[in-house]
Amino acid sequence: MALKVALAYSGGLDTSVIARWLIENYDAEVVCVAVDVGQPGGLEGLREKALATGAVAFHGVDAREDFVSSYVWPTLRAGAVYGRKYLLGTSMARPLIARRQVEVARAAGANAVSHGCTGKGNDQVRFELTYRALAPELEVIAPWREWDIASREDALRYAHSRGIDLTGVDEEKLYSCDENLWHISYEGGPLEDPTFEAEKEMFLWTVSPMDAPDNAERVEIGFEEGYPVSVNGERLDPVELLLALNAAGSRHGVGRADIVEDRLVGIKSRGVYETPGGTILYAALKELEELTLHRRSIALKDLVADRYADLVYEGRWWTPEREAIDALVDVLMRRVTGTVTMELYKGSARSVSRTSPKSLYDGDLASFGESGSGDYDHGDAAGFIRLFSLSLEYPEAGEESGER
Amino acid sequence: MALKVALAYSGGLDTSVIARWLIENYDAEVVCVAVDVGQPGGLEGLREKALATGAVAFHGVDAREDFVSSYVWPTLRAGAVYGRKYLLGTSMARPLIARRQVEVARAAGANAVSHGCTGKGNDQVRFELTYRALAPELEVIAPWREWDIASREDALRYAHSRGIDLTGVDEEKLYSCDENLWHISYEGGPLEDPTFEAEKEMFLWTVSPMDAPDNAERVEIGFEEGYPVSVNGERLDPVELLLALNAAGSRHGVGRADIVEDRLVGIKSRGVYETPGGTILYAALKELEELTLHRRSIALKDLVADRYADLVYEGRWWTPEREAIDALVDVLMRRVTGTVTMELYKGSARSVSRTSPKSLYDGDLASFGESGSGDYDHGDAAGFIRLFSLSLEYPEAGEESGER
Amino acid sequence: MALKVALAYSGGLDTSVIARWLIENYDAEVVCVAVDVGQPGGLEGLREKALATGAVAFHGVDAREDFVSSYVWPTLRAGAVYGRKYLLGTSMARPLIARRQVEVARAAGANAVSHGCTGKGNDQVRFELTYRALAPELEVIAPWREWDIASREDALRYAHSRGIDLTGVDEEKLYSCDENLWHISYEGGPLEDPTFEAEKEMFLWTVSPMDAPDNAERVEIGFEEGYPVSVNGERLDPVELLLALNAAGSRHGVGRADIVEDRLVGIKSRGVYETPGGTILYAALKELEELTLHRRSIALKDLVADRYADLVYEGRWWTPEREAIDALVDVLMRRVTGTVTMELYKGSARSVSRTSPKSLYDGDLASFGESGSGDYDHGDAAGFIRLFSLSLEYPEAGEESGER
Amino acid sequence: MALKVALAYSGGLDTSVIARWLIENYDAEVVCVAVDVGQPGGLEGLREKALATGAVAFHGVDAREDFVSSYVWPTLRAGAVYGRKYLLGTSMARPLIARRQVEVARAAGANAVSHGCTGKGNDQVRFELTYRALAPELEVIAPWREWDIASREDALRYAHSRGIDLTGVDEEKLYSCDENLWHISYEGGPLEDPTFEAEKEMFLWTVSPMDAPDNAERVEIGFEEGYPVSVNGERLDPVELLLALNAAGSRHGVGRADIVEDRLVGIKSRGVYETPGGTILYAALKELEELTLHRRSIALKDLVADRYADLVYEGRWWTPEREAIDALVDVLMRRVTGTVTMELYKGSARSVSRTSPKSLYDGDLASFGESGSGDYDHGDAAGFIRLFSLSLEYPEAGEESGER
Repeated sequence: MALKVALAYSGGLDTSVIARWLIENYDAEVVCVAVDVGQPGGLEGLREKALATGAVAFHGVDAREDFVSSYVWPTLRAGAVYGRKYLLGTSMARPLIARRQVEVARAAGANAVSHGCTGKGNDQVRFELTYRALAPELEVIAPWREWDIASREDALRYAHSRGIDLTGVDEEKLYSCDENLWHISYEGGPLEDPTFEAEKEMFLWTVSPMDAPDNAERVEIGFEEGYPVSVNGERLDPVELLLALNAAGSRHGVGRADIVEDRLVGIKSRGVYETPGGTILYAALKELEELTLHRRSIALKDLVADRYADLVYEGRWWTPEREAIDALVDVLMRRVTGTVTMELYKGSARSVSRTSPKSLYDGDLASFGESGSGDYDHGDAAGFIRLFSLSLEYPEAGEESGER
Repeated sequence: MALKVALAYSGGLDTSVIARWLIENYDAEVVCVAVDVGQPGGLEGLREKALATGAVAFHGVDAREDFVSSYVWPTLRAGAVYGRKYLLGTSMARPLIARRQVEVARAAGANAVSHGCTGKGNDQVRFELTYRALAPELEVIAPWREWDIASREDALRYAHSRGIDLTGVDEEKLYSCDENLWHISYEGGPLEDPTFEAEKEMFLWTVSPMDAPDNAERVEIGFEEGYPVSVNGERLDPVELLLALNAAGSRHGVGRADIVEDRLVGIKSRGVYETPGGTILYAALKELEELTLHRRSIALKDLVADRYADLVYEGRWWTPEREAIDALVDVLMRRVTGTVTMELYKGSARSVSRTSPKSLYDGDLASFGESGSGDYDHGDAAGFIRLFSLSLEYPEAGEESGER
Repeated sequence: MALKVALAYSGGLDTSVIARWLIENYDAEVVCVAVDVGQPGGLEGLREKALATGAVAFHGVDAREDFVSSYVWPTLRAGAVYGRKYLLGTSMARPLIARRQVEVARAAGANAVSHGCTGKGNDQVRFELTYRALAPELEVIAPWREWDIASREDALRYAHSRGIDLTGVDEEKLYSCDENLWHISYEGGPLEDPTFEAEKEMFLWTVSPMDAPDNAERVEIGFEEGYPVSVNGERLDPVELLLALNAAGSRHGVGRADIVEDRLVGIKSRGVYETPGGTILYAALKELEELTLHRRSIALKDLVADRYADLVYEGRWWTPEREAIDALVDVLMRRVTGTVTMELYKGSARSVSRTSPKSLYDGDLASFGESGSGDYDHGDAAGFIRLFSLSLEYPEAGEESGER
Repeated sequence: MALKVALAYSGGLDTSVIARWLIENYDAEVVCVAVDVGQPGGLEGLREKALATGAVAFHGVDAREDFVSSYVWPTLRAGAVYGRKYLLGTSMARPLIARRQVEVARAAGANAVSHGCTGKGNDQVRFELTYRALAPELEVIAPWREWDIASREDALRYAHSRGIDLTGVDEEKLYSCDENLWHISYEGGPLEDPTFEAEKEMFLWTVSPMDAPDNAERVEIGFEEGYPVSVNGERLDPVELLLALNAAGSRHGVGRADIVEDRLVGIKSRGVYETPGGTILYAALKELEELTLHRRSIALKDLVADRYADLVYEGRWWTPEREAIDALVDVLMRRVTGTVTMELYKGSARSVSRTSPKSLYDGDLASFGESGSGDYDHGDAAGFIRLFSLSLEYPEAGEESGER
């Protein structure tokens, strides 16, 4: 049977080379699928480039709203952070892109799918687990794991020799980047030395904290059941809202992270990320949770948050496990409605005020001003403490003397 | 039998009043015990004040080195953070103070212990669990739970009526503070409204980020097996090291936290903290862990870190549980040796570089520059992914068609 | 205002005495509320007894179906086991009883609620947390914490002196029992010595394993999405199904447990339980989960199961935390459909066979008979292992020689 | 360089064939290493068989004591159970065998190691992670992943064609077995159908519960700090003690488990196990923990027990993670000293009595006989409950009406 391959296509060097390589090496018909999750340039010009490489068809999909609503917001609400710092910007986009790719593959009658991820990274796993979950019948072709192109230089050579259009490709670029509505990431090049300090010039989104304005800026974020819905009192749709916070955060150098992380394939790697709006949102949502959720509800949420982070990072998005945690979070989030004011200044986002109609905070109860205020009887504490200290394993002495 | 009470004494309003109240109401002999964990003024002048209130004896204990070495460092190495943000400064000091109080009580032949904690807070629990663990035979007197003094104003009135020396007591103060080598905390007064923004004037340790120097400052911190041992290449003892980082952090407005927290007694309360050196140390140690520990070791550490935070917060310091986690952490920390350079700027502390003789980072392995570099064969990833995706519960479709 | 108390009434010694005591001591109107969750005798004769003690009204509620469907099944599906062994029979019934009591209280215009639980046990907490959650406006009266009746003997004396009808009360009984559709429990008396072995005569439900039939019996249990729906091929409603399994289990001495447990109030206590049908169901459901759920889904379920057990045990049923775990479990249970055959014999219930249309078990894949069978390529394992072993922290030797 | 291979050798079909195959295909010198962990026959006759296959040397190692003391006891004390039921008998033996193999390899100047594990199972991972941790310089040869022998029949054919001595090999055997001091396991053959019920004839250790004696047998097990030290009052060394309990358990049909488990390589497989002594010991140790440990200490232990089970199952024995959990368990086990009496009957092991000098059980405190007995004041419970119920998120109603 003739091979018809749906390729996850970005118009960059790797996937442009792959389109041609699949034709040359597999005698395949190639259908290029580009999914817009907010990368620079969006889908502009991609159709022409794709067809110029020899692809038989091109499909562009605008998934920006879907990305924020169905991938970013659930991950935010779950409080998922990988490796203590990484806000999962690339990880979340992969199951979406691969899903849209599979949809196109089926509509176009393709019998294979392909992607441009290297054999050392996480993204190959994320793409292929989605294929496996949603379309196990499709053959998977991962060129980076099988061809003899061994470096960026090789790929450029290949592209030049075939006259592939490299408009927009920076042939001298130092870093491997990934960019979408939520974040931009940098890997490789000089960053591979963990003592190398990321240079000012590398950062494309945020201003350096030291170059940020001398005046702080405040943003008031409104949440409904854990979903961000407004900025400074104005209701915004998810994409607008995220763009507004990205802009605010970027102005003040907020959201840079420099991480030595553990890739799923077992390699320690170093990445630098800019997630300005996301950093503000994670901080703000936690503030509101503190105000509206019982200590045990927070602990339950934190207990599953790490699982969620792991599964997103590892590409296990299309699993009952993910859906189950979503369901749990939905229940806990029923109370997480209110507003939080964040102050952005020289690289930091700090909460300065929070309010909620569902607040569990009771000023009378908390107050030290009048003992016995509110429902609280100080004598109750004596009983509480006596019971709380029963059956403690100390002291050893008491036991030995048989006092117990 | 005559009552002889060892009182945890600070020379402040509450414990000064309590000393007299115990004499008046219990006809007790009072032994005042002051433990220096780095509070302002230390033990200076306390003997005279204590004896003037009618105490029969005063014992001052310098526990600063002990506090940092045996309470702060273990909590730091365990990575314990309560309620996502609180670095446990007050919580850690209580089991130390109560332990020293008990030692004095025994040496002095006391048959009771007393403290000045209110009936709504956590500290009463922390003191009394230590008494219960280390000296269950001693009677516990908690005046705030039994007397009819109901407010700070009442206490001041009592003190004035008895001519108690209030040197150093700020009769107008707005906030309830606790200060030691690790942190200073603020509660009460206007902070009881969670929408009230903490005022600049309140902060006693750190400069406001906005008033911090326009130039960043770097500090290089050396760790050995998770213990901080040097700053900028100079070996320092624990107290000196912490003071040096407190000074650096304070200069740059680092370490402020504004928290709505869940007290052990079930009340949501609001506190503001300054922990400049601690904030730098927590961040730096995590950087080093990322570099030197396997993903699973970090996950194991994080798994027990919350338990550690809870037990410190709840006053369950003197338990096998705490000792058990210490033992676990000691093993994992064997590898956590190296240096981390932190940049302090306008309220933030960010790592810019880290290095370790035990680093697990392998530049060749991580590199995208040459495929198949180092030990890594890209083809291995194919096998990994195929096995990683076995037995996934998706797709539903495949199952229904009986393909499995 | 006159006091009108809705009393959780069982017709036993304690609540009979309390009904009268409330009238005598509080000059209260007492409304007796009896909730049938399957205890022996059900509601029979309770109206007459209640009114004879002086109550102004009696309300009997048949909650058996509700108990099994809405309290037992969720706890079973969550896999909740307290203290490693306790299947929560009493714990689950309390929030139901208290909820019905509150409903009656409101309908009857009562302004207070009361229960017969002692001040040392868990049940007082479970009742009162339900009152607090569902009807915080009602006053709570807990006679065992305030009266001067200090023992069962005192209570009997009080009852006799008032001529209270004690029909059905065993005045000589050794044990404190609680019985409902799910279990029967025994505490107190000779069991308070943990070296005392429970006597054959104590057990009211199950035959002793040694007296059980010499022939094993098999039961085939059908589940749909984690709900038990049939026994031996016959569809049964929840109450019938549980009774059928109780009968089968009891015939074979299945489901006895002898536990030293930690009460919520901090006391270690000893209890003995019979949960014949429940023991069979817990074991059978786990078998089906093993067949139908991915390892990570099981791990996620087990992660929250302990939280569920704790919250049920501690009476925190009416919380978002419980609802959140229910939602998570619902998702995971979508696949847990199938049948399990259990063999009952001399005190044990063991699975002998399980089958499911959602099975993840793939005989070809599992087989050692032919290498490379099914989707599996043995060579994949080599890649898997190489990646799985990257970044391990051993050996120390290699590091020191600088090989990394 | 000439290849010299240290082969983990059992004298069975697979490793006999491998010894010859390595010589034929790699022109290797083969050193056979047999490690006695209690398998049937021990090391008897293995030297002759090994040399007859062409091996240049044979090393037999008696590791029985080491196995029980350093691998079985730590796993028991950690309470590690994989997949809810599997007591890890095979998993624990692999890191020991591989470690001894490496020691021989180094002493003999070998430059490679080899094993007979298939490419679909867990054991290949366990062997190779040990090689990687302890001797990363040695080449690893895994014949089952590279040769063209695809089944047991192929292997028999190969052996016959080379005249390999198959004394003791059952050429007709149905099951793949693994046997050591702790357990015997069965996989493959008819068990690959999960609805197939294991046949009576398969079980080599335990009698069927139905054929067990009609009289129960009791064994009293003594523990010191979590280590089993005596049976029926007689101090025994670890091997003797385990053999004594295996014998007792086997007489009564105790310790059979039939499991659908998740292999590390992602395959659901079905195994049947007999672990008679181990089953008794796990149950007994838990009883003692309930008596001597605080609820939170038990919870901490259970929290890490699953991690321990995972790491043992996955072959990650030689890791700081394992050593760290050992250190934690050592601390908690300081109190777990005492005796437990277990009753063995028709397939079950149930505790009937337990006693400890470190017991936390306090009969006075637990008793319902006299209210207010011991240290306990019933009124304390009222305070406890009031504080315990503060800040609960229910009722929704109350909030909406602004009552809070």
